[in-house]
Amino acid sequence: MRKLRMGMVGGGPGSLIGDTHRKAAELDGMIELVCGAFSSDPDKSKMFGAELGIDDKRAYENYNKMIEKEFSLPLEERMDFLSIVTPNYLHFEPAKIGLEHGFHVICDKPLTMDSDQANELMDLVEKTGLQFAITYTYTGYPMVKEARELVKTGVLGAVRKVIVDYSQGWLYSNIENSGHKQASWRVDPAKSGKGGSLGDIGTHAFNLAEYISGLQITEVCAEVSSFVENRQLDDDCNILIRLENGAKGILSASQICVGEENALTIRVYGDKAGLEWRQMEPDSLILKFPDQANKVLRAGQENLSEISLNHSRLPPGHPEGVIEAFANIYRNYALSLAAKIEGKSSHFDLFDFPTINDGLRGMFFIEKSVESGGSNQKWIRV
Amino acid sequence: MRKLRMGMVGGGPGSLIGDTHRKAAELDGMIELVCGAFSSDPDKSKMFGAELGIDDKRAYENYNKMIEKEFSLPLEERMDFLSIVTPNYLHFEPAKIGLEHGFHVICDKPLTMDSDQANELMDLVEKTGLQFAITYTYTGYPMVKEARELVKTGVLGAVRKVIVDYSQGWLYSNIENSGHKQASWRVDPAKSGKGGSLGDIGTHAFNLAEYISGLQITEVCAEVSSFVENRQLDDDCNILIRLENGAKGILSASQICVGEENALTIRVYGDKAGLEWRQMEPDSLILKFPDQANKVLRAGQENLSEISLNHSRLPPGHPEGVIEAFANIYRNYALSLAAKIEGKSSHFDLFDFPTINDGLRGMFFIEKSVESGGSNQKWIRV
Amino acid sequence: MRKLRMGMVGGGPGSLIGDTHRKAAELDGMIELVCGAFSSDPDKSKMFGAELGIDDKRAYENYNKMIEKEFSLPLEERMDFLSIVTPNYLHFEPAKIGLEHGFHVICDKPLTMDSDQANELMDLVEKTGLQFAITYTYTGYPMVKEARELVKTGVLGAVRKVIVDYSQGWLYSNIENSGHKQASWRVDPAKSGKGGSLGDIGTHAFNLAEYISGLQITEVCAEVSSFVENRQLDDDCNILIRLENGAKGILSASQICVGEENALTIRVYGDKAGLEWRQMEPDSLILKFPDQANKVLRAGQENLSEISLNHSRLPPGHPEGVIEAFANIYRNYALSLAAKIEGKSSHFDLFDFPTINDGLRGMFFIEKSVESGGSNQKWIRV
Amino acid sequence: MRKLRMGMVGGGPGSLIGDTHRKAAELDGMIELVCGAFSSDPDKSKMFGAELGIDDKRAYENYNKMIEKEFSLPLEERMDFLSIVTPNYLHFEPAKIGLEHGFHVICDKPLTMDSDQANELMDLVEKTGLQFAITYTYTGYPMVKEARELVKTGVLGAVRKVIVDYSQGWLYSNIENSGHKQASWRVDPAKSGKGGSLGDIGTHAFNLAEYISGLQITEVCAEVSSFVENRQLDDDCNILIRLENGAKGILSASQICVGEENALTIRVYGDKAGLEWRQMEPDSLILKFPDQANKVLRAGQENLSEISLNHSRLPPGHPEGVIEAFANIYRNYALSLAAKIEGKSSHFDLFDFPTINDGLRGMFFIEKSVESGGSNQKWIRV
Repeated sequence: MRKLRMGMVGGGPGSLIGDTHRKAAELDGMIELVCGAFSSDPDKSKMFGAELGIDDKRAYENYNKMIEKEFSLPLEERMDFLSIVTPNYLHFEPAKIGLEHGFHVICDKPLTMDSDQANELMDLVEKTGLQFAITYTYTGYPMVKEARELVKTGVLGAVRKVIVDYSQGWLYSNIENSGHKQASWRVDPAKSGKGGSLGDIGTHAFNLAEYISGLQITEVCAEVSSFVENRQLDDDCNILIRLENGAKGILSASQICVGEENALTIRVYGDKAGLEWRQMEPDSLILKFPDQANKVLRAGQENLSEISLNHSRLPPGHPEGVIEAFANIYRNYALSLAAKIEGKSSHFDLFDFPTINDGLRGMFFIEKSVESGGSNQKWIRV
Repeated sequence: MRKLRMGMVGGGPGSLIGDTHRKAAELDGMIELVCGAFSSDPDKSKMFGAELGIDDKRAYENYNKMIEKEFSLPLEERMDFLSIVTPNYLHFEPAKIGLEHGFHVICDKPLTMDSDQANELMDLVEKTGLQFAITYTYTGYPMVKEARELVKTGVLGAVRKVIVDYSQGWLYSNIENSGHKQASWRVDPAKSGKGGSLGDIGTHAFNLAEYISGLQITEVCAEVSSFVENRQLDDDCNILIRLENGAKGILSASQICVGEENALTIRVYGDKAGLEWRQMEPDSLILKFPDQANKVLRAGQENLSEISLNHSRLPPGHPEGVIEAFANIYRNYALSLAAKIEGKSSHFDLFDFPTINDGLRGMFFIEKSVESGGSNQKWIRV
Repeated sequence: MRKLRMGMVGGGPGSLIGDTHRKAAELDGMIELVCGAFSSDPDKSKMFGAELGIDDKRAYENYNKMIEKEFSLPLEERMDFLSIVTPNYLHFEPAKIGLEHGFHVICDKPLTMDSDQANELMDLVEKTGLQFAITYTYTGYPMVKEARELVKTGVLGAVRKVIVDYSQGWLYSNIENSGHKQASWRVDPAKSGKGGSLGDIGTHAFNLAEYISGLQITEVCAEVSSFVENRQLDDDCNILIRLENGAKGILSASQICVGEENALTIRVYGDKAGLEWRQMEPDSLILKFPDQANKVLRAGQENLSEISLNHSRLPPGHPEGVIEAFANIYRNYALSLAAKIEGKSSHFDLFDFPTINDGLRGMFFIEKSVESGGSNQKWIRV
Repeated sequence: MRKLRMGMVGGGPGSLIGDTHRKAAELDGMIELVCGAFSSDPDKSKMFGAELGIDDKRAYENYNKMIEKEFSLPLEERMDFLSIVTPNYLHFEPAKIGLEHGFHVICDKPLTMDSDQANELMDLVEKTGLQFAITYTYTGYPMVKEARELVKTGVLGAVRKVIVDYSQGWLYSNIENSGHKQASWRVDPAKSGKGGSLGDIGTHAFNLAEYISGLQITEVCAEVSSFVENRQLDDDCNILIRLENGAKGILSASQICVGEENALTIRVYGDKAGLEWRQMEPDSLILKFPDQANKVLRAGQENLSEISLNHSRLPPGHPEGVIEAFANIYRNYALSLAAKIEGKSSHFDLFDFPTINDGLRGMFFIEKSVESGGSNQKWIRV
C-alpha cells in the first residue's frame, strides 16, 4: 500500500502539538504530510510549509482553500485525510467542511466547543461513512492496551472502583497574563469552550477510565473550581463518578497542582484483582492480587497480550514515550484507512483508535461536569 | 522522672493492635505496663497478664475492676493512665469511668460509637483537666511532622488542594463470614458504630488531612458504598471535601481495593509548592516546586525541622516504621504527662499528639459522611 | 519462660548503637536489661544505669567488674548473656572474659581487631558450648530471610552472579577532625582494626551475600582506597568476588558516596531467576523471571515462606524497620538461648541468627581484602 | 538547508536495529533515506527498498555497488552519508570504502572487529576530514547531557567514584541454538569480534562512564566469564576501573542477569555531590548532596542546562525514549554535517555526538578487558 496523504490544519511555527502530530504521523512510515494550512497568517503558512519541505502550491493560506483545492486534485494526488491540530474553537469548521468534501479526519481533543457541534459531526460521520479519529494520546500506550485487555478478559473480575487522576501544575499561577501563548487560549472560553482543565486534561482522564474499564461513566458529582484570580475557566476539578455496572470512582483533573508535570494515573479494582498505570512511567503496569505479590508487567514482554505487543516497537527495557503512543494512534488510523481504501477488512480489535464517539462522550463529560459544578443537585447523568 | 504506669483495656491473646500498643508504649523506656484487663474472659485476662510478666494481682477480670482497684492503690503505685485498645464499642465506657476516677487516657480510634459519646468524653476531659490522647498513628511519623511544618511555615503558600487516599484490599471479599476475627467486628454496626471503612481508616485519612494542612474540613459530599454482599457497613467511600480556607479536595477510603496493603497517601498543593507523602515509604517526603527539581526529604536529615528530627531515632537511611510512629505518640504523651505530674510546662508544640478534639472531629466526619452518603443534598457541613 | 537477663558492655550516654541494641533486645518482651558497664568513665556508667532504671548496684564501673560481680550472684539472678556494643577494639576482651565465666555473648560487628582474636573466641565458644551471636543486623529482615529461602529452595536455580553494594556518604569529608565522635574512632586503626569501610559496612555486605546466596566467597580481588586526605583506613572498596560454586560477582562498600544514606542493596542471579533487595525499602523483594513480569514480594504476605513470616510483626503495608530487624536477631537469640537453658531443642532453621562463624568470616574478609588491595596478585583466597 | 541524504548498509527485513536507525534518522525531518543495501541477499534488498518507498534503482544489491553507483551520481543527488547497521564484522569494509569515496559515515557500535581496523578508519577520517559518528545511543538522552554538564561545571566537585552497570538477561540461556538470529551472531567471534557482552553492551557502559565523567578510563582489572555452556564469547563481565584523575570504580556488563531487561545505570560521586541515572527511567536524574534532600531533575524542566534542553522535544512529564535519544544523535550529526556542507561553523558543544574516537576507545576497552580477563596481572592499561 502507498503512504497515506495527510493535510494539516494548524500546527504552524512554534506549535508543539503540531510538531508532535507530524512526528507521530510519520514515525511508522505509513503516512506523509502533503499539504497544510498551518497558520491563520497566510504568509506564515506558506513559509512554514517550505520549511517542512512541502510542495509550495500545497501550503495553503487557510483551511477552506486547502479543502477546496485538494478536492479539485485528482484522486491519486489529493490528500486522504485532514489532521486538525488547532485550538478547540477551530476544530468544528474544518472537520465539518472536510467531511463534507469526502476527506477523512483525525482531530485533536476535545472534539468541539460543545456537544451540539459534536453531534453534528457525529451525524456527518455516520452519513458519509468517513473515518474519524480523535487523539486521546494515552490510549495509544501498549500498557494501556494491556490494562484494557486484563479487564476485558476477566482478570480483574467485575470492576468496582476506578480512580483516575490527572494532575498538572503549569497553570498554578496567572501565566496567561504574561504572554504564554498556549495558556492564554486554554483559559479563554471563546477559544476553549466550557471547560478549562476539564477540556484539556479531564477529557483524557475520562476517556482513559472508560477505555480501560470498558464501562461508561453514567453519573458525575463535580466540584469545579478556578483557583487563579480572574481565570474564567476551571483549573481544578474533583468529581465523583458512577459507572454503568454499579462501579464507583473518582476523577480528578487539575492544572494547579504545583510541581506536577503530567501526572496522569489510573487505578482500577475489580472483585478479583486491581491494576495501576502511571503515564510518566508508561512502560510498567502493576497488577495487584489479594495477599500475593504484585506483578509489574512491562511493555514488550512476551507474556503480554497480542494487542499490547502490537503497540510496542522495541524490546522490554527500551523506553518508548508519548511520541510513540501518539504514533500508535496514527499508525492504527492508517492501517484502518488503508484497509478501507483497499476494500479490505481492518483489524480494529487489535489496532484500535479513539473515534468520534469517544470525542462526543468527552463533550458530554465537559458539559455535565460544568453543570454539576454549578448545581446543588448531587448527581447529574452524563 | 520515673516510668509512667500504664493499665491496658483489651489487647489480649491474639490481638495485634494490643501488641503494637505495648511495643510502642515501651519502646522509649518512659512507660511500663503495670496492669490490664486484657480480655472479656477473666481467665484469659489473668493468664495473659502472667504471660506479659504482670503482677498477678494486677491482671484484672474486667476494666471496672481494674479502675476500681487501681484507684484504691496508693498514688505512688497506681496506674497513671489507661490505654484502651478494645473494639470501638468498648471505648466509651472504660474511658468515661477512667476519667471519672482521675485516670488519664490514651484510646484507639475511632473515639466512640457516636458523637454524643464523644462529646460526653470531651466535656469530662475539659472538666477534669486530665490528659486524653487518641492514637491516630500516622501523625507520629517524622515526615508527617515535617509536612505539617512545611505548610505551617508557608513553604507551600496558601493551601488549595488536598488529596488523601487510604486504600486497603483486605475486605474485598466476604472474609467476615469465614471466622476472621477482626473483620467480623469491623463490619458489625453494633461493635464498630456507623462507619465501616469510614471509621477504621477514613478517620485516619481525615485526621491526616487536617493535621498536615492545618485546616479544618468543613464540608463533605460523600459516596458511601458497600460492595460486598450483605455487608452492613461501608467498605468504600469517595468523598469530595472543602476546607475552611476555601481549599478543595478529595478523601478516599476503601477496603475493597484488592491487592492494596495499607496504602495511605496524601498530597497537598499550595499556591507556591506541593508535597506528597506515602505511608508505605514513610521515610520520604516529596516536595514539589513549579518547574524545578522535586526534592526528596528524608527522615533524620539535618536539614529538617526540629519537630521532625524529634521524631526520628536513627540516622537517614535506617528505616523506621509503624511501631516507631506509634511509639512517638506514646513518647509524646508520656513527656507531656510527666511534665503535668511534675508541674512543669510541656513542649506540646515540638512533641504533640492527637487529642480528644481530634477524636471528636473524627466522629463528626463519620456521621456527616454517612449522612451525606444517604442524601441527595450535595454538601453537608461537618 | 522467664525473661532472659542481659548485661551490656558499652552503649552509654549518646551512643546510638547502644540505644538501638537496647530497644531491639526489649522489643519482643523476652529480654530485660539487668546490668551494664556502659561507659569507660565509671561515674557516667553509674549515672546512665540510673537513667535506664537499672538497679544501682548493677551499673558497674567497668566490664571486668561486671563479669566478676555478676558471676558471684546466684544463678537465678545473674545475667544470662553479655551484649557488647563498644567500638571494635573493645570487643575481644569482654567477650573472652565473659565466655570464660560462662556467659553467653551477643556482640556487634566486626567481631574483633583481627582474625587471631576471632579464632581465639571461636575456640572458646566451641570449647564452652556457649551461645555467641554477632549482630549483622540486615539478615534480620523478613525479606532477607525470604531471599535466602528462594535461593535455598531452588527458585533461582544455580547462582551465577552476586552484586552487593553498600554505599554511604557520611565520611565523604574529613569529619573525623571536627569532633564527630563515631567518625573519629571509625577511621582510627587502633580502634577499628585493619578495615575502615571494610569493617564498618563491608562486613555487612559480605555477610549478606553469603547469607542469601548460601555460598562462601572464596576469592577476592580488591581495590581498597582512602579518598579523604590523611585518612589512615580505607573509605572506599571495589572488590571482584568469586563464590564456591563458580559464581562471580562484585562487592562494593564505600563511605564517600556523597549523598547516599545507608544504601545497601543486593542482587542475585541464578540460571532460572534473579532477585533484588534494597535495605532502604526493606519490606519489598523483587523477584525477576526471564521475559515475564517481575514480582514484588512484600513482608507479611501470606504467600511468603514460614521463615520470612516468622520475622514480621505486622500485616503487609505496615512498615517495619531496622529496629525490628535488629530485634529479630535478639528475639531469635533469646528463643535459642531459652531452649538451651530449658534443655529443649531450638528451631534455628526457622529462627536463625548470625553466629561466631559469621563473625570469623568477616575478619577473613577484611584481612584478605586489605591484603588484596595492596597486592599485584589478582586473586587472593579468603 | 535541504534534507541530508542517507544511504543504509544493512537493516533489512526483520532488523530491529535498522528500523530504529531509520525512525531515529527521520524523526526530526532533517534526513531522508535515499538508498540502501539492506540485505546480503540482493533480491531481499530490492524488495525491502520498495517496501520503504525507495527509488527502485537505489535499492542496491550490496554496499560495494551502492557506494560505486552513488559516487557516480551528480553531487546534488548522491547520498551524503552512509548509515552502517550491520553486524560487527560488516562495519569496517563499508565504512572504509565509503570514506574512500568521500562519503560521511554513521556506524553502529562496536566500531570494528579489532583496534587495528579501528585505527585504520581513524586515520582515514583524519586524512579525509569526513564526519564519522558512532551510535552510542544512550549519550543522546537529555538527562545524560545534563549529568555530563553537572560534572563539567563542577557541581559534583572532583570525581572520585564511577559505578556503571549494564545488566540484561536475554542471553541467560542457550538461545543462540534455537534460531534466535541476533543471539546467534552476537555470540559468534567471527561476527562479533573478541567481545560478547563486552562489545554489545560493555562498550555502551564504558562510553557512558567516560562521557559523563569527562575522564578517560586508564586501567582495567577484569573478570570475564561465559556462563552458558559452549558459548565462545563472554556473557558476563565484572571490571574494576581506574580513571585518569585517580578516580576509581566498577564497570559491570552482563547478559545473564536473568529477568533484567535493559538495565543500564550509572552513579558518579565527586567530593561535593553525586548523581544517578537509570536508562529505564531516562527522564529523571537524581542529584545527591551531603545530608540534604536529593533533587530529582527531570527532562525538559526550565532549570536544566541549555545542552540538556536542546535534547528534549516535549515538556516535562511527557516521556521520551530510546528512539528520541537515538534521533538526537542523528539530529546532531545532521546539524553538524549541514554546517560543514554549508561552510558554517557547527555548535558541537551544544549538539555533540559520539565520534570515531569514542569508537576507537571502545575497541581498546574490549581488547584490554579480554586481555585482563585472561591474565593474572591485576591491572592492564587501556
